[in-house]
Amino acid sequence: MKASSAFQDTSPIVIKETRAPGVMMLTLNRPDQYNPLSEQMLSSLQAEIDEVSANNEIKVLIIAATGKAFCAGHDLKEMRATPDQLYYEDLFSRCSQMMLTLARMPQIVVARVQGMATAAGCQLVANADLAVTVDTARFAVSGINLGLFCSTPSVPLSRAISRKRAFEMLTTGGFIDAHTAHEYGLVNDVVPADKLDETVDALAQNIASKPADALRTGKALFYRQLNMPLAEAYQAAGQVMADNMLFRDTQEGVDAFIEKRDPNWN
Amino acid sequence: MKASSAFQDTSPIVIKETRAPGVMMLTLNRPDQYNPLSEQMLSSLQAEIDEVSANNEIKVLIIAATGKAFCAGHDLKEMRATPDQLYYEDLFSRCSQMMLTLARMPQIVVARVQGMATAAGCQLVANADLAVTVDTARFAVSGINLGLFCSTPSVPLSRAISRKRAFEMLTTGGFIDAHTAHEYGLVNDVVPADKLDETVDALAQNIASKPADALRTGKALFYRQLNMPLAEAYQAAGQVMADNMLFRDTQEGVDAFIEKRDPNWN
Amino acid sequence: MKASSAFQDTSPIVIKETRAPGVMMLTLNRPDQYNPLSEQMLSSLQAEIDEVSANNEIKVLIIAATGKAFCAGHDLKEMRATPDQLYYEDLFSRCSQMMLTLARMPQIVVARVQGMATAAGCQLVANADLAVTVDTARFAVSGINLGLFCSTPSVPLSRAISRKRAFEMLTTGGFIDAHTAHEYGLVNDVVPADKLDETVDALAQNIASKPADALRTGKALFYRQLNMPLAEAYQAAGQVMADNMLFRDTQEGVDAFIEKRDPNWN
Repeated sequence: MKASSAFQDTSPIVIKETRAPGVMMLTLNRPDQYNPLSEQMLSSLQAEIDEVSANNEIKVLIIAATGKAFCAGHDLKEMRATPDQLYYEDLFSRCSQMMLTLARMPQIVVARVQGMATAAGCQLVANADLAVTVDTARFAVSGINLGLFCSTPSVPLSRAISRKRAFEMLTTGGFIDAHTAHEYGLVNDVVPADKLDETVDALAQNIASKPADALRTGKALFYRQLNMPLAEAYQAAGQVMADNMLFRDTQEGVDAFIEKRDPNWN
Repeated sequence: MKASSAFQDTSPIVIKETRAPGVMMLTLNRPDQYNPLSEQMLSSLQAEIDEVSANNEIKVLIIAATGKAFCAGHDLKEMRATPDQLYYEDLFSRCSQMMLTLARMPQIVVARVQGMATAAGCQLVANADLAVTVDTARFAVSGINLGLFCSTPSVPLSRAISRKRAFEMLTTGGFIDAHTAHEYGLVNDVVPADKLDETVDALAQNIASKPADALRTGKALFYRQLNMPLAEAYQAAGQVMADNMLFRDTQEGVDAFIEKRDPNWN
Repeated sequence: MKASSAFQDTSPIVIKETRAPGVMMLTLNRPDQYNPLSEQMLSSLQAEIDEVSANNEIKVLIIAATGKAFCAGHDLKEMRATPDQLYYEDLFSRCSQMMLTLARMPQIVVARVQGMATAAGCQLVANADLAVTVDTARFAVSGINLGLFCSTPSVPLSRAISRKRAFEMLTTGGFIDAHTAHEYGLVNDVVPADKLDETVDALAQNIASKPADALRTGKALFYRQLNMPLAEAYQAAGQVMADNMLFRDTQEGVDAFIEKRDPNWN
């Protein structure tokens, strides 16, 4: 969390870049303020994510950030300017909506983390489908240090890592380093700074080389079945997989595998 | 996944062996095809598992396999031969039924893994109560490489290991090695090849030395309470445990413990 | 589990100590019997915990124990003296009630573990919000060795650590050491014996330095949202966090952060 600076920054608050065919990157770009999830950042991000979500040419969305920190959470100065219950409920609702969009969109979402990710910034990492971090990054849900328990960040954090570890982070507000985040399962990979882009790009392009329909239906099923009893989850998964078998690219992919050749995909 | 070979193999497709009193082992035996879960394999396995399930002399069921691979998942050639939605739904339903039987049977199920376990083969490991693997084994849910997201394997995988790790395996289709599988909690133990049998047998016989009724009611309660709210889970567990206290072997076990002697169990 | 000794111990069965402002410690004090959760222990603990729970001066509750073991679970001799279904149901219900009180109370609960924690003693560790252990401690849910599956301990254990690890502990009854417990996420920290008190006290005082209202509402939300679908969890968390923003200490905490000064908290 960091107070917003007073002057008006006219550079784009979210930078949009095609990294490779099928791979889009959205970069949070308020580095001097540690890329807070201000109202403007949230609405810009939501608009960009909605556009990506509707674009079936895009298979992977990378969420990145400029500067010394990935994201420092909500914009506290902006929040304190309107000390109103309904305003806060609406603000958290919009932030949650953005997080839910990331979880529900057809694209696979990869967080590319440098510097530090705190509070709702750490939430953004936990909420992403996948995450890669530099080895110098640090993670915290530090709101409790200000008297603000990171309740919304606790939602994806408690689903990404084990319970006692999440609870310790939430009640102490302390940082964990990148290697600990990796051990906990909060991130998928930890690399030196000079390997971050190539690692993220390789992961994104690997995933983008798979058929879009299979990724889309698989991601939706993955999250949908998590809370179901085992038998119900198997039932839902079996139906999705039967559908998946009849996709044109899948039939071609299986044929290619049987015939020991490369698939001829769209 | 591997295509079925054309000739008719007349050796038993599932080998049944009593490893020790109370310990049965079922061995998938189509090594040249990497033991695919073909229709024939599924129906043979289901029949054998049903028989084991009904046999209250058996406390532990080991699932093993012959050859270079544990199990390479579904039989893709067979699947492609009938490109029909209802056929696929029925096939996945039968596979899920077999997995559910393993989770619901009174016996403790131990996967004994060598070589590789991919797609529904990895599902079989994830779905087992316990798993022991050689240190050279590799694990993948690789369907996405053919355009077939491993939706049914995702069900037990996402319940066995942390979310981001499962999601990475499902969307990249990449292999993890045995030590990584151990770190993730996908397997309980990783040993050199020449220690696999003794490790699996020791684990199985250790468990088989406990009273059957306690294992049976405990296993059922364990899976039943997982999705319950905490208070409801405690309520269910307390009733099971009160019943358990009145089992003859338990009364004898507790008495023996108090009297510092070995229990005289059935 | 250990049989209760015959003579009447007149020392307090639970020792109550204020460790620091806002930090209370309750110490199980039947060291010769490995601090079993006897009827008397349960009712004394429940009474003390209820008192702590109602005291809004206390932010952190440490659960500790005297002697060579943290807690060896239920009092088996006492249990065998009344071999009655309703008696057992009531006993487990009272034990579960104590555990649920720890999970529901406003205070953050830290288990301070030495020696060994077995059966319901291991449950007490798993059920605590946080846990710190000496590096020589050992953990087991060993009831199955007597024919009594640790069903109630399985409830928090299966929520604290991964599924296959919990299941192995429950069906083998075997011990894990302190470092393994740490790797599994069963405990938050593992330290040499001569660092136990300072580590527990530092953790407790760190947490006790945060505003009580934020800890209270955050803890309640954390456990409440765990079983919810993602969207519902975000909705619940957003409301709690909006409330939290309007607490006096939080407004002061955020202002102090923005103004780069220490907060002036109650």
